Amino acid sequence: MLEVELKNGVVREYENGTTPADIAKSLGGGIFKSTCACVLNGQVKDIRTTLEADSKNTLELLTFDEEQGKKTFWHTASHVLAQAVKKLYPQARIAIGPAIDNGFYYDFQVETPFTAEDLEKIEKEMKTIVKSGVALERFEMSPEDAVKYWEEKDEPFKVELAKEHAQKGEPISFYKQGDFTDLCAGPHLMNVGVLKAIKLTNCTGAYWRGDSKNPQLCRVYGTAFPKASMLEAYLKQREEAIARDHNKLGRELELFTTSDVIGQGLPIMLPKGARIIQLLQRFVEDEEQKRGWLLTKTPFMAKSDLYKISGHWDHYQDGMFVFGDESKDKEVFALRPMTCPFQYQAYLNRGRSYRDLPLRYNETSTLFRNEASGEMHGLIRVRQFTISEGHLMCTPDQLEEEFKSCLELAIFMLKTLGLYEDVSYRFSQWDPSDTEKYIGTPEQWDEAQGVMQKILDHLEIPYAIGVGEAAFYGPKLDIQIKNVHGKEDTLITLQIDQMLAEKFGMEYVDKDGSKKNPYIIHRTSIGCYERTLALLIEKYAGAFPMWLAPVQVKLLPIADRHIDAVCQIKKSLESKGIRCELDDRSEKIGYKIREAQLEKVPYMILMGDKDIENGTISVRSRKDGDLGAFTIEDFLSRAMAEIETKAL
Amino acid sequence: MLEVELKNGVVREYENGTTPADIAKSLGGGIFKSTCACVLNGQVKDIRTTLEADSKNTLELLTFDEEQGKKTFWHTASHVLAQAVKKLYPQARIAIGPAIDNGFYYDFQVETPFTAEDLEKIEKEMKTIVKSGVALERFEMSPEDAVKYWEEKDEPFKVELAKEHAQKGEPISFYKQGDFTDLCAGPHLMNVGVLKAIKLTNCTGAYWRGDSKNPQLCRVYGTAFPKASMLEAYLKQREEAIARDHNKLGRELELFTTSDVIGQGLPIMLPKGARIIQLLQRFVEDEEQKRGWLLTKTPFMAKSDLYKISGHWDHYQDGMFVFGDESKDKEVFALRPMTCPFQYQAYLNRGRSYRDLPLRYNETSTLFRNEASGEMHGLIRVRQFTISEGHLMCTPDQLEEEFKSCLELAIFMLKTLGLYEDVSYRFSQWDPSDTEKYIGTPEQWDEAQGVMQKILDHLEIPYAIGVGEAAFYGPKLDIQIKNVHGKEDTLITLQIDQMLAEKFGMEYVDKDGSKKNPYIIHRTSIGCYERTLALLIEKYAGAFPMWLAPVQVKLLPIADRHIDAVCQIKKSLESKGIRCELDDRSEKIGYKIREAQLEKVPYMILMGDKDIENGTISVRSRKDGDLGAFTIEDFLSRAMAEIETKAL
Repeated sequence: MLEVELKNGVVREYENGTTPADIAKSLGGGIFKSTCACVLNGQVKDIRTTLEADSKNTLELLTFDEEQGKKTFWHTASHVLAQAVKKLYPQARIAIGPAIDNGFYYDFQVETPFTAEDLEKIEKEMKTIVKSGVALERFEMSPEDAVKYWEEKDEPFKVELAKEHAQKGEPISFYKQGDFTDLCAGPHLMNVGVLKAIKLTNCTGAYWRGDSKNPQLCRVYGTAFPKASMLEAYLKQREEAIARDHNKLGRELELFTTSDVIGQGLPIMLPKGARIIQLLQRFVEDEEQKRGWLLTKTPFMAKSDLYKISGHWDHYQDGMFVFGDESKDKEVFALRPMTCPFQYQAYLNRGRSYRDLPLRYNETSTLFRNEASGEMHGLIRVRQFTISEGHLMCTPDQLEEEFKSCLELAIFMLKTLGLYEDVSYRFSQWDPSDTEKYIGTPEQWDEAQGVMQKILDHLEIPYAIGVGEAAFYGPKLDIQIKNVHGKEDTLITLQIDQMLAEKFGMEYVDKDGSKKNPYIIHRTSIGCYERTLALLIEKYAGAFPMWLAPVQVKLLPIADRHIDAVCQIKKSLESKGIRCELDDRSEKIGYKIREAQLEKVPYMILMGDKDIENGTISVRSRKDGDLGAFTIEDFLSRAMAEIETKAL
Repeated sequence: MLEVELKNGVVREYENGTTPADIAKSLGGGIFKSTCACVLNGQVKDIRTTLEADSKNTLELLTFDEEQGKKTFWHTASHVLAQAVKKLYPQARIAIGPAIDNGFYYDFQVETPFTAEDLEKIEKEMKTIVKSGVALERFEMSPEDAVKYWEEKDEPFKVELAKEHAQKGEPISFYKQGDFTDLCAGPHLMNVGVLKAIKLTNCTGAYWRGDSKNPQLCRVYGTAFPKASMLEAYLKQREEAIARDHNKLGRELELFTTSDVIGQGLPIMLPKGARIIQLLQRFVEDEEQKRGWLLTKTPFMAKSDLYKISGHWDHYQDGMFVFGDESKDKEVFALRPMTCPFQYQAYLNRGRSYRDLPLRYNETSTLFRNEASGEMHGLIRVRQFTISEGHLMCTPDQLEEEFKSCLELAIFMLKTLGLYEDVSYRFSQWDPSDTEKYIGTPEQWDEAQGVMQKILDHLEIPYAIGVGEAAFYGPKLDIQIKNVHGKEDTLITLQIDQMLAEKFGMEYVDKDGSKKNPYIIHRTSIGCYERTLALLIEKYAGAFPMWLAPVQVKLLPIADRHIDAVCQIKKSLESKGIRCELDDRSEKIGYKIREAQLEKVPYMILMGDKDIENGTISVRSRKDGDLGAFTIEDFLSRAMAEIETKAL
């Protein structure tokens, strides 16, 4: 007999040979039907797994509500996709088909990529398979048999995978449903019948194993849910997300573009996008100046000598753009991935005393990271970006107060932009089992993390812990935010660093005349401008707050004879710094309004005969439509107030 | 007999065998004594040269007033320097000793570099030689004899030079004065006696032939004049220039610094320098916005593909930082040396019609140029710089008007900064004898230069012509300025380009529906910010106009008990955006004033008991000293007016 402790703490006894599937059935109440996978003795497992005999097992059954349950659900759906494709297109060769965020895909080698109609046919076939309610069976083969099996089936990608598995010398697991068999580690559902709601969303090209030297495959994406209503809700949400996706909307609104001849991860800010970045930069630099930060402008590259001192050379070189050739006796330079060692050179420009501290350096700093081609995404993950970076040198006594003020600055920025409600905190720590990745000793890390934890707890910051997420030179407080597709990224980061000052020989003379290394706080205040812009596009679906809108007022003469009067109004507005655009095309006014609305311009000013007669302007807001007649003074004071208060 | 046409057109007859020296003597009136060299039949020559027999010669005698006369004067002085060194330090080995701008140098190999006292001794010895009034003689040796001669003298550098000369197979010329003989192409003075006023200025290390793999030599610099008063005037001017030199003063004022571990040509802007650059950038961007320019922010690097289209790959690759490796199937990227092709990608973002033109893109753009180590200088010649760059796309009809408005913008900037009176114009053209350097056909160049010349003449711009100074894609109007040492550099450039639009496929649909390539004007408005800052430092000797001063007001409490009141004043000023610094050290007020004066802060505000009693502040200006008591309101309105009008 064996014992099982379930999630609620209840311990039950079962016969040896029992599986989680048996237990789910024994619990009744539809539990078996909704179980996708399980956590058995701490590991995610197939519910077909036999429990450990004569011993105490812990078991958690996973449904579609749990992350790993979903993954299993979608993984089985990907097998159904492959089964349908093989039935309809026997010549298609199958590659791999994992679960991903929000669904699954399967890669096929086909002569011509699938069309939208093909996808419809495949989806229909999948539904037929689901309706058949066929069960999945798991079995194992010896590696030799597995290779032979796939060779006979003429599936070259599977042969390659089987041969790789064979090197381990262990049996290989297979899953079979009806006439379809796949080599797969699992876990999988018991039966395809629960894949009630299936949708194939799109297909793209993808190289076998992501390598452009390999054959190109056709990757079919899809998703699946246990209920039709869940699929509907998902598709609706996805549609909204796509409409807000900065990588789509930002291009439509002509905020940015990209160019094949410039390269991936190097977005081009068009005038409207560049204007927003300029406004944000000025806002940040001015706010920082008010709070006692001193602006620096340090170079974007340095000799390898600098990075050897900082540790970037040993710990970050793969992420850097390096040029020159040491072996040919040429100077080696690298573009900077971080600003730290450059601002330290400013600190080192002369002797410092405790009276000079805290010394706060800020910079609107451009950084470069050699991201892999596959990782680039819109404005979120790029090879060159500009960040509000700063380093604060202080005494131990000043550390907590200064850390707090850095955090307050970041919160002020987030609140001003309307993003604060969307963020969460993560305390990123080192990974003591992977010391190679970091500089410093375990004692130094314990101390640095201890100092930071004390401050965070004191400030009552609610944080999650991210082990192995620290910078190579110190722990971080990361402010996290999710994009419109639910993917989380770091927007802002604050770090406490006790190690680099020593490496760079940064000192100050203390009150007692002794020389000490300052503490350094590394911090951003608004993060990367490109990433922040991406999040703002998605947050506001392109309808930026008035103060940030690249065009604030669109002027629409009702007929050509009103153009002169409109130009006068434009001049008055521009003299107050309001950004205007004139639509003087001979189009119908309704058409012009619709276009301005699509461009998400906060205000439209219309002028016709009656306006000119009355000396007024007709104002429309993007949000509330027609606002009626205004004097130019009244409109100006409304607009200026909105701009000055940075109203959201 | 031979004929000589002198500079004034007079033709005289002389016997065959006559030299310019003979002719100078024959002209009487001290002409011989002041003659340094000559232009004989169009070439600079030694006045010992025998005139062409039985023929008509043209001859211009050169004195110290002419560039080449000066060079000869200084070249002879360098021989006297070497003579003195060999007399005092027989173990010193001699290398080379040319004339340079403002004087001469000679390189010596010595065990320990010369000290200041050594230089004094050498200078004294030089004066003794000059007083001796020894004559210089010119003679020739066969290459073989020359090599042997220097081997016997144990002068390895001269042996190397003689061997090189020997490859030409021609006799080698020597000059001898007293016991000193040097291998030298000349020309030289007849007699050392005219080197009346000599000054050795400094010595530095220099590698033989500028190559760090060669032995390091000791380079002694000096200058010489025919009269003591001329030397005095020169030394005074030099002292002033050194005091204003941005590379010295800019560091003393903590505007910028450099770092050995970052590398040459990569200055670090410290807070005060970064603040000035920020102020300039905002001023330029705002002014450009007012004038209809649209800001872009394009990436600082691109794949080689982009530069292959633009022609940079073929015509500018040596000046670029390139990384990646095509042979290893890795993407090749390069940092941009110019913004042009990047802004063209913005133009190409969508279709354009004649209604969209002129389209004016501006950018505060960072560029990178791989300058050779020896060419870097302070903020003037650097590897990374930021420039107010712009490209204007227009129709042929708009070209002249738009070119004019670009020029007006540049002039407005120069006038605002107080630099306009110091500039000159250069029309930089291609070199038709070196077509490899350029893209396009001779016809295209004729047309482009013709268009530009017509506009320049029409605008009545007084320009010099610089053949071979064009960009590789088109002619330029360069606005030139001299630094404090008299070295000329380009500050601002405007170009007309007919070639790149075609290469990039940039088009617009004209009124008649046909597709055409726009004209492109490349332009800067304030030039490179680093270079502009350097010129401003030198122009104002660090005493920047109020609106640009990094610290505008220094607050000086007379005693510690006045600090609180001073802090109140500081707050009021800062709330109006005035940049303040408080000197709250317990130092004497006279000392604090002297320091603020050295920091060139425009205004000092002093507060003592009487000020507090009267509710006033005591104001000092850096220029006019004590201005007496002000109310805070009166001072504020004076200061704000100075800032808002950008008073010089």
